Amino acid sequence: MDVSATAALRHLATTQALRRVPIGIIGPREATQHQCALAEELGFAMAQHGLQLLCGGKNGVMEAACKGHAAGGGLPIGLLPDEEWQAANPYVAIPIATGIGPARNAIIARSCLVLVAIGGGVGTLSEMALGLQFKRLVLALADAPVVDGVPRLDSTEAALARIADRILWNL
Amino acid sequence: MDVSATAALRHLATTQALRRVPIGIIGPREATQHQCALAEELGFAMAQHGLQLLCGGKNGVMEAACKGHAAGGGLPIGLLPDEEWQAANPYVAIPIATGIGPARNAIIARSCLVLVAIGGGVGTLSEMALGLQFKRLVLALADAPVVDGVPRLDSTEAALARIADRILWNL
Amino acid sequence: MDVSATAALRHLATTQALRRVPIGIIGPREATQHQCALAEELGFAMAQHGLQLLCGGKNGVMEAACKGHAAGGGLPIGLLPDEEWQAANPYVAIPIATGIGPARNAIIARSCLVLVAIGGGVGTLSEMALGLQFKRLVLALADAPVVDGVPRLDSTEAALARIADRILWNL
Amino acid sequence: MDVSATAALRHLATTQALRRVPIGIIGPREATQHQCALAEELGFAMAQHGLQLLCGGKNGVMEAACKGHAAGGGLPIGLLPDEEWQAANPYVAIPIATGIGPARNAIIARSCLVLVAIGGGVGTLSEMALGLQFKRLVLALADAPVVDGVPRLDSTEAALARIADRILWNL
Repeated sequence: MDVSATAALRHLATTQALRRVPIGIIGPREATQHQCALAEELGFAMAQHGLQLLCGGKNGVMEAACKGHAAGGGLPIGLLPDEEWQAANPYVAIPIATGIGPARNAIIARSCLVLVAIGGGVGTLSEMALGLQFKRLVLALADAPVVDGVPRLDSTEAALARIADRILWNL
Repeated sequence: MDVSATAALRHLATTQALRRVPIGIIGPREATQHQCALAEELGFAMAQHGLQLLCGGKNGVMEAACKGHAAGGGLPIGLLPDEEWQAANPYVAIPIATGIGPARNAIIARSCLVLVAIGGGVGTLSEMALGLQFKRLVLALADAPVVDGVPRLDSTEAALARIADRILWNL
Repeated sequence: MDVSATAALRHLATTQALRRVPIGIIGPREATQHQCALAEELGFAMAQHGLQLLCGGKNGVMEAACKGHAAGGGLPIGLLPDEEWQAANPYVAIPIATGIGPARNAIIARSCLVLVAIGGGVGTLSEMALGLQFKRLVLALADAPVVDGVPRLDSTEAALARIADRILWNL
Repeated sequence: MDVSATAALRHLATTQALRRVPIGIIGPREATQHQCALAEELGFAMAQHGLQLLCGGKNGVMEAACKGHAAGGGLPIGLLPDEEWQAANPYVAIPIATGIGPARNAIIARSCLVLVAIGGGVGTLSEMALGLQFKRLVLALADAPVVDGVPRLDSTEAALARIADRILWNL
C-alpha cells in the first residue's frame, strides 16, 4: 500500500508517542487577510496531524496560526519577546515569556525542525536566515521574502507534505 | 463549601481552558535518589492538576520531573542549552533547543510562574536568584540552596498548595 | 569652510571624548583574499578615525577587520559565540565570550550603530536582517548578500563616509 | 627581586600588548555612598593597572565603577540590558546595548575573568552564582551577598591582588 507522507504522519501522531519537536510559523504582526487565512489553515492542519506549533506568540500571522492550531486541538506555544506571559495573543495555550526581546527569534529558528514563513519583512527575513544558518528546513508561503535555499510553495497542503517528508525521512 | 486551593486548581484544569503558564522544576544533573523521587512525585502531581512543566530538559532532577509529569499525562517541556533537540532526556515531550548554553537559565526563570528547586548547586542557585529578580515565586524542597525570600517546604503537597495559591489568588 | 564628514569625524575623535558606540564589520569565517583586504582596510581606517570596531571575533573577515583595526591603533572587540575568551582570533584586543552561540549575532546587530557586511552567506544575511529590524544602518561591500534597504558601496572610503554621516547627522 | 602580583601586572600592562579580558564590577543600581566609593576606587585602580572594566552600564555601583575607571584612563564597557546605547550611564566609554534585558547578566558573568561584587541583592546574587557556575573567580566587597566559594575581602587593594594572581598565575 502506498500512503502519502502526510497520511503516514497522521497515523503515527495518533498511535505513537512521538516527540513533539516544534514546527514554526513565522510572519508579520501586521498581516493581510490572505496571510492570516493561510496561517490559520496551516495551524489547523498541523494540529490535526499531531504537530506542535511554536511561534512568536504575538499578533498578525502568529495569532492566526495559534487560532487555527487551537481550533484543531493543538496547544500552540508562543515564545514571547516580552517579560510577562500576559503579552501573548489570546490563542497561545503555552506562553513562554523569554524577556530577551527580538533576540528570541534566534531561539525560534534554532528550536524548530521546520520554519514556514507567511509574508513578512526584515524580522521574518532574519528568522529565515537564522533557520538556514542552523540547517533547518525553511519554507515560504504567500509573499514571504525571497531567499536562496527557501522553496516557495503555493498551498498549505504542499507545506504540510514537506514537513512530513522532513519528519519521516529527514528530506 | 470550602475547598483547598489544590482541589480548586484540579477542578479548573479539567473544566476550563486555562493558559498553561509553565511551572518550573529546577535542580542538579547529578541528583540523589531522594531528590529524584521528589521531582518525579511533583512532576506527576503537577500533571494531574493540569499544570504545565517546564525544565532544563537534561538529566538528574530534570529527567525525574519529566518522567513523573509524562506518567501523569503531561507534556513536559525541556528548554535545552543545546543546539539540537536530540539532547533532551527521553521523557521530554516538547524539546526546545535554545542553542544558547546555560544562559537559557535566565529564560527558564523568566517564563515560569513558580520555580521549585530540588537540591542543587550554583547552577540551581543562579536560577533561583534570577527567579527572585524577576519576581517569581521560588520554592525550595529537600536540600536546595538557602536563599533569603525562598520558603523551604517539606513535601510536594506543600509545594503544590503554594503553586495553587499563586495561580488562583496570586499569593 | 567646507569639510567632509570623514574629516569632521577624525577631528572630533582626536579632540573630544566621544562615546565609542561600536561599528560592526560582519562577514564569513571562510573569506576570499579580496574580502579580507577590504575588511583590513576598513578596520584600519576606522581606527584612524577614532571608531570602535565590534565584530564576531572569529576568523576570515572578522580576523582581517581586527588586524587592520589593531594596526591602526584601535582596540577591536570580539563578541564571541564561545564560552571562553581564548577562542578569539589573535588580533582581538577585548574578547567578550558570550557563551550563547550564534545567537550572539542578535547582540552584534543590536549594539552596533552601523553594520558593514563584506561578503557572506546566510549567517551574514541574518545579521544584516537583524540590523535592519533594529533600525541600524546596514551597508554592503564586495559580494555581500543583496537585501532591500542595504546600500551597496564600492569602496571602504564610501563606507567610512556613510558611517560619518550617520554619526554626525544621523543620516 | 620580589615583586607583588599587582606590581607585576602594572609592569606588564604598560609594556606588553596583553589581551584585555574584561574584569567585572557588579552591584546594585541603588547603592550606598560606601559602596559607590569602593566601586570608584576599584575602577580607578583597575585602569591604572591596565585592566579592562566591564559592567552592566547602569547606575549606582556600575556608574561609580565607570567613573573611577574613566578617571584612571580606562575605557569602561557597559553591557546594557537596553535596546539603545543612550541608556548607558555618562561614564561608559564603550556602550554595548544588548537588547536582551537582565538576561545580559549571564553574558557579564561568562565574559569576565573575575567578578567583584560590591553590595547587591538578588540581581547581584544571580550574577555571582552564574560566575561560579562558569568557573569564574568571584570576589565580594562590602556587604555583597554571602555565597559559598566567594572570598570576602576587606579592601580594593586585596581585590586587586586577587585579580592579579588570577591573571598572572591562574590562582
